[in-house]
Amino acid sequence: MSNHVELAHGGGGRKMRQLLEHTILPAFDNKHTEARHDAVVLPVGTQRIAFTTDGYVISPMFFPGGDIGKLAVFGTVNDLAAAGAIPKWLSASFIIEEGLPLDVLEKVVHSMREAAATARIDIVTGDTKVVDRGKGDGMYVTTSGLGIVPDGVDVRPARVRDGDSVIVTGDIGRHGVAVLSVRKGLTFESPIESDCAPLADMMQCLIREGIDVHCARDATRGGVAAVLLEIAAAGRVHVEIQETEIPIDPAVAAACELLGIDALHVANEGRMVVFVAESDAKRTLHALRSLEVSRGSAIIGRVTTGGRAGTASIRTRFGPARALDLPAGEPLPRIC
Amino acid sequence: MSNHVELAHGGGGRKMRQLLEHTILPAFDNKHTEARHDAVVLPVGTQRIAFTTDGYVISPMFFPGGDIGKLAVFGTVNDLAAAGAIPKWLSASFIIEEGLPLDVLEKVVHSMREAAATARIDIVTGDTKVVDRGKGDGMYVTTSGLGIVPDGVDVRPARVRDGDSVIVTGDIGRHGVAVLSVRKGLTFESPIESDCAPLADMMQCLIREGIDVHCARDATRGGVAAVLLEIAAAGRVHVEIQETEIPIDPAVAAACELLGIDALHVANEGRMVVFVAESDAKRTLHALRSLEVSRGSAIIGRVTTGGRAGTASIRTRFGPARALDLPAGEPLPRIC
Repeated sequence: MSNHVELAHGGGGRKMRQLLEHTILPAFDNKHTEARHDAVVLPVGTQRIAFTTDGYVISPMFFPGGDIGKLAVFGTVNDLAAAGAIPKWLSASFIIEEGLPLDVLEKVVHSMREAAATARIDIVTGDTKVVDRGKGDGMYVTTSGLGIVPDGVDVRPARVRDGDSVIVTGDIGRHGVAVLSVRKGLTFESPIESDCAPLADMMQCLIREGIDVHCARDATRGGVAAVLLEIAAAGRVHVEIQETEIPIDPAVAAACELLGIDALHVANEGRMVVFVAESDAKRTLHALRSLEVSRGSAIIGRVTTGGRAGTASIRTRFGPARALDLPAGEPLPRIC
Repeated sequence: MSNHVELAHGGGGRKMRQLLEHTILPAFDNKHTEARHDAVVLPVGTQRIAFTTDGYVISPMFFPGGDIGKLAVFGTVNDLAAAGAIPKWLSASFIIEEGLPLDVLEKVVHSMREAAATARIDIVTGDTKVVDRGKGDGMYVTTSGLGIVPDGVDVRPARVRDGDSVIVTGDIGRHGVAVLSVRKGLTFESPIESDCAPLADMMQCLIREGIDVHCARDATRGGVAAVLLEIAAAGRVHVEIQETEIPIDPAVAAACELLGIDALHVANEGRMVVFVAESDAKRTLHALRSLEVSRGSAIIGRVTTGGRAGTASIRTRFGPARALDLPAGEPLPRIC
C-alpha cells in the first residue's frame, strides 16, 4: 500500500473505507460514531438534533441538472433526511481559489439560496477563505446541517431486521453519469440530468403515514452498492437484491456501459435506499410513488438470513447470486 | 474593482467585508445573520444552541505552537466561546490533495483528537474528500461546532453599551507572526510561538463569576483591529483604544516592524476581545488574570460617545487619536 493519499481514497470504494477505519475515525468520539450513520443524533434538553457535514469538490462545478451550490445544500439536507430529521439550519464554508470570476461565485451563492428555500432550510452561518491560484479548483463548499428528529423516530443501521424490504426511491445512476458525461465530453440524444433533489419532505411523508422506517441512506458516493454494504456491515445483516428490479433509465444504462462503469457504483444525489419491515413495504411504496421526487420507487431486495452478515449479494436474471462489492481500483473521483 | 476573487478577499480586510456584504450574505437567512456574530444562537426546545463553521487553509500546515488540526478544533471552539456557549460537538470535513503523505494526515488527525480532549468537545461526524494533485495544498479542514448557551447568557454585539470597557485577554500578534516567520524563513533568538488555545473555559469562568459579558470575539483574521471595527459596526457604537495599553511581546513587536505589518492587524488564535460594563471591568480583569490562558489580560479601551458610531480610533502615546481601519491592500493571506 502506498504511503500517500490517492484519489481512490476519496471515491467511496474499499480504499476510502480503509482510510476512514485506520486513519480518520480514531480521532472521533466512539460513543457517537458507532451508529455509523451520515448524520449523528444528539440530545439537546428533551429534544434530539441531527448533525452532519459534507465537503463538495465536484468537478465541473456546473453540470446538467445542478451545480456545486445546489448539491451542497441538497446533499447535506439528504444526510439529515436519512436520520429521519426535519432540516432546520445550514452552515456554508467556502474555500475559493484566487482568480475565480466573481459572477461564478454569485451564481453558486444564488443557487444555494434557491436550494435552501426549496428544502426549507436556513443558511445561518458561514465562512470564506481564499487560497492562492493553483491551490484549489475554483471553489469548494463545505456545508453542515442541523435538523430536529421528531419524537419516536429512530432511523439507523442497527434497526435493520431479517425480512426487511429494501426500497430505492427512483432510477439509479443519473447524477454520476451526468457529471461524467460533461467531463468526458459525451453527448446523448436527450441529455442525462442529475437527479439532485432534496429528500427530507419525502422522508417526513413516510413518517407522517405512520411507517416505521428502520434505516435510510442517500446513495451518493459509491452508489447503491456502497450504501447496501455499509448498512449490511453496520447492521450486521445480509442484504440480497434482484438485478431485474433495479430501476434504471435505458440511456443511463447505455452510458454506463459506454463508460465501463457499474451503475450500482455510480453516485446519485436524489435517491434514498429505505429499509422497512416487509409488512410495511407495499404501503411505503404507495406513499413514495405518490410523490414526484420518488415516483420511480421500487422494491429491489430484502434482508435475509440466507447470506453472511455484513455482506450483500445480487441475483441476476440468469445464474446464481454473486457477491456485491465496493470498487477496488480507480473509482469515480470528484463526483460530489 | 477586478471581477475576480483576489487573495485580499480572504484576508480579513476591507475587500473581504465587501465580498461578504455584496456576494455571500445575500444567500443567507437574515433573521439569524443580523446578529453578525461568529456563532449563531438557535432555539431547540427550551434550550439554545450555538452553531458556527470555519474553514482552515493555513500554510504551512505545521507552525511553532500548533498545526492545522489544533487550529481547526480550537478556532471553532473559540467561536462558540465568543457566543458564551459551552462547546459540545464538532464536525470535521477534510479536503485532501492527492499525494499527501499518510503520516501527515495521521499527525493532523492525532492533533485534532488531542485538541478536542483538551477543549472537552467531541468530534462526532465528518467527511473526507480527495482532490487531484495541484487542486489543493496538502489538506484543508473545515470544522463546524455546536455548543449549549447557558440560561441567561446573552453575548453579542448589540449588547455593547457606551462606557463599556474593552479587554484583550493577552498579548497580541503571536499567531500571525509565528506563521509568517516560518513562511519567510525568519528565525529569532527565542522562537515566537502561536498563542493557539481554547478559550471556552475562560469564558465560562467569567459567566460563573456572575459577570455579564456584553460581547466577546476572538481576534483571528484581521486581528484586534478587525474585531473592534466589526463590533463597532454591528453594535453601532464607537470604540476608542489606547496604544500604550495594548499588551505585546517585544519580540513580536520587533518582528512586526521587520515584516512591515501592524500588530493590530495580525491574527491571534488564543485571544478574546471582551466587552463588559465599566463597573465589572476590574473584577473581569482579576478573573481573567487568575487563569493561565489569559494571564496577560489588559483593559485596552472603552466604548464612548466621543466618536462616530460604527468606527474605532486609537490614541497613541503622543499626538491625537487616529482612525482605526481595516487593511485595504494585500493582507496576510492563509494565516488561519
